[in-house]
Amino acid sequence: MSQASRVLNATLRNKIMSADEAAALIPSGVNVGMSGFTGSGYPKLVPAALARHINKHNQAGEKFRIGVWTGASTAPELDGALASVDGVEMRLPYQSDPTCRRRINAGEMEYIDIHLSHVAQFVWFGFLGKLDIAVVEVAGIREDGSLIPCSSIGNNKTWLDQADKIILEVNSWQNPELEGMHDIYYGTQLPPNRMPIPIVRPGDRIGEQYFRCDPDKVIAVVETHSPDRNTPFTPPDNDSRRIAGHVIEFLEHEVKKGRLPANLLPLQSGVGNIANAVMAGLNDSKFEHLTAYTEVLQDGMLDLIKSGKLDFASATAFSLSPDALANLNANMRQYRDKILLRPQEISNHPEVIRRLGIISMNGMIEADIYGNVNSTHIMGSAIMNGIGGSGDFARNAYLSMFVTPSQAKGGAISCIVPMVSHVDHTEHDVQVLVTEQGLADLRGLSPKQRAKVVIENCAHPDFRPALREYYERALHSGNGRQTPHILDEALSWHSRYQKTGSMR
Amino acid sequence: MSQASRVLNATLRNKIMSADEAAALIPSGVNVGMSGFTGSGYPKLVPAALARHINKHNQAGEKFRIGVWTGASTAPELDGALASVDGVEMRLPYQSDPTCRRRINAGEMEYIDIHLSHVAQFVWFGFLGKLDIAVVEVAGIREDGSLIPCSSIGNNKTWLDQADKIILEVNSWQNPELEGMHDIYYGTQLPPNRMPIPIVRPGDRIGEQYFRCDPDKVIAVVETHSPDRNTPFTPPDNDSRRIAGHVIEFLEHEVKKGRLPANLLPLQSGVGNIANAVMAGLNDSKFEHLTAYTEVLQDGMLDLIKSGKLDFASATAFSLSPDALANLNANMRQYRDKILLRPQEISNHPEVIRRLGIISMNGMIEADIYGNVNSTHIMGSAIMNGIGGSGDFARNAYLSMFVTPSQAKGGAISCIVPMVSHVDHTEHDVQVLVTEQGLADLRGLSPKQRAKVVIENCAHPDFRPALREYYERALHSGNGRQTPHILDEALSWHSRYQKTGSMR
Repeated sequence: MSQASRVLNATLRNKIMSADEAAALIPSGVNVGMSGFTGSGYPKLVPAALARHINKHNQAGEKFRIGVWTGASTAPELDGALASVDGVEMRLPYQSDPTCRRRINAGEMEYIDIHLSHVAQFVWFGFLGKLDIAVVEVAGIREDGSLIPCSSIGNNKTWLDQADKIILEVNSWQNPELEGMHDIYYGTQLPPNRMPIPIVRPGDRIGEQYFRCDPDKVIAVVETHSPDRNTPFTPPDNDSRRIAGHVIEFLEHEVKKGRLPANLLPLQSGVGNIANAVMAGLNDSKFEHLTAYTEVLQDGMLDLIKSGKLDFASATAFSLSPDALANLNANMRQYRDKILLRPQEISNHPEVIRRLGIISMNGMIEADIYGNVNSTHIMGSAIMNGIGGSGDFARNAYLSMFVTPSQAKGGAISCIVPMVSHVDHTEHDVQVLVTEQGLADLRGLSPKQRAKVVIENCAHPDFRPALREYYERALHSGNGRQTPHILDEALSWHSRYQKTGSMR
Repeated sequence: MSQASRVLNATLRNKIMSADEAAALIPSGVNVGMSGFTGSGYPKLVPAALARHINKHNQAGEKFRIGVWTGASTAPELDGALASVDGVEMRLPYQSDPTCRRRINAGEMEYIDIHLSHVAQFVWFGFLGKLDIAVVEVAGIREDGSLIPCSSIGNNKTWLDQADKIILEVNSWQNPELEGMHDIYYGTQLPPNRMPIPIVRPGDRIGEQYFRCDPDKVIAVVETHSPDRNTPFTPPDNDSRRIAGHVIEFLEHEVKKGRLPANLLPLQSGVGNIANAVMAGLNDSKFEHLTAYTEVLQDGMLDLIKSGKLDFASATAFSLSPDALANLNANMRQYRDKILLRPQEISNHPEVIRRLGIISMNGMIEADIYGNVNSTHIMGSAIMNGIGGSGDFARNAYLSMFVTPSQAKGGAISCIVPMVSHVDHTEHDVQVLVTEQGLADLRGLSPKQRAKVVIENCAHPDFRPALREYYERALHSGNGRQTPHILDEALSWHSRYQKTGSMR
């Protein structure tokens, strides 16, 4: 298939230009809504051309910076390229790029970390300012001017609807068989005119297969043939396998107790190796007819579909290793009736998550003995990535689980601490904590009762004595005994790490 | 109207007995679901009789304790009576009683502080253990055995459905004209069978006027004639009036900017004097055709209905001062078409809150410079009341506002601190902070940008220099600059208060 054949609308064919020409249409000071969710469906050429453009201005002594809004994280060609030329004034709602992170933590780039389900509505509400330009990758432009979405949806619908001007990247690398795997919901309204989101099963179709797009707003069409760039997963290590084992055993126990159906409830799992290990564990389990209502579709979930264990998966993006991506593209027909991609305001919608009764599993940086979770900040001050969709899922899930190895940095850091250095998920939203050491079921426990199971079941044995000792001293410190703390010491583990390189 | 006439069902008439006889049917070790939400609709006689019963056992050297589950807070006749005899092993999901609080903070009573929308479903899921007995106040029993709810609904539907045994208190003090003001939704299901909650306007009726009740489960009917006991409100002080002024001015500004309709969006407001002052401010404003979708209906909202400013209010309970309650009862006909009481799983349902686009206003204990909010803990360890419904509303609201005076304890405490000592609402869920000093609009701001407006707009001038100095030093500490903190000092203000009685 030639690249040209992907732009079937005559009006838009006339707007085809080079990435450099398109990037030159983006002035300094604007907010740009770009496609991209994990390493999928981000524009491949325009951000890099824009970075060159910005660099030229910067070298001429002019300050050229824009606001960059996306679905979630992207790839080096977008976040890396723009951050490396210091071209980003404000980044939202999520990032995971090393250059971007370095700029943010150096105070050179502002960053707003937002629940992924909130982003689209905040733009519609006018809470984030004006969206000037959309730069959206699509798999093709149809004769009627509607757009074929590609490997992620993210906030693209909102960007296309809300931006004054639109630049389209038509990527002929995107598999044409993706057509029909998308469900773009056009029923959202502003309050007070909102209606129920009519999803009652993960596979329910409630929208359209294509993006609507006003051709008059399109200022450029750029053709490309470039692959998505996702990170390879490392094979599950011992810790990940042990965490997965605890999770599977717990789910089996819940089924036995009658608290979960035999085929569980729709699964959500965050990005990463532990999540993939849990999926691998499910593949080896006796569970069948599983479903998923999740944010990203990873290798492990694709394997579950392949093996016939998973009947249906709804997501907003693929987040596959190069190998899995090749497998998907080679066998798209086998998968296409079992996968649906939706806008992230729907994949992460609290209403739908609560209704479906999701089993939610997300990674974390650290948890404290009372079950508060830090998903975002290193030692309280430095951002790692962002909260992403973890809050959308954890608070509204049927079961909310957070997972991490019990130690980091070769044992210098305990991931179970007296008090987390930053809170993203409060004790109210955290039901189950899992490390390679074991699982803490916190449902129906008071904070003091939680402390005991978190320390004994989840903390690394090396850190248990110090955690027990902190708890006991806090309990007898004369401070209140709902959530006993000694404020002078609550964050001392982190402080010690900053000073000595170890929490020990 | 005689008391007897309120029990019209023949079978249940045969189960009428004294409160002491009924209380004697409650054994030690059980979980008891009691009615009650704020000072409304709690059982008036059985808890006190149970307290006497427990006391007798305790004096005989036997340990007699129960689990007490309610809608939210209750009154001295329930929480106070049971806590004073040390009869409560585990309390959930909310309390605000001084004796109860003292026991909890002394480590003599376990307490689980739960999002109010989560409670009913957790019981249905089996996450909190078995509910053995329900003790529910009603306004009457109909001939067919169905029950007329009274001045609060709370979790009563779930208690009646889930408990093995039921004790009913039929309170003839409750206004008979309450009949018909309730909407009990019987459409909830366990996942994966849940359907949309079909509310699209605050006044939508989706359920039944009465509680269904299996007469075979009823083990006792106790008749009483006792008033609800709510706390009187103090008239708005200067700080409350100034906070209300900032809120109203902000809402007017949002309407002018086109970000809110002229009649706003449905209001939610937490309990307390500041909330009442905001309602009083709305009464003096030019806003009309207001609506409310809230947890409790307070004096200020009743005044808004009376003045014709508020078209409709949905809540789960009345929370009125004695004067306002007398006014309501004397003029029920005037109010009854404009008020609906619902189960708290519906009044606080994330799905409905997000759909309606609520303007949410809740009190807090403290906020930090980055916009994290502590609603529950004094100096990190001691519980005050609980999170209540503030999390249900804040995360799903159109606008989420938190209010507090800038200082407490005569200026010894700053309610704006470097880092909150406990987090209930993360930066992700807090859009607007208001003190008597001013309003901080945090929408679209990064943490560093937030710090500046929180310090300059909300902190008391006496504390601003120290906050600015902390922020600047944190920014240059060499730690990350997303949310700059100095961990050795982040909680030092609270620690100083504990040691010296002042944060100054």
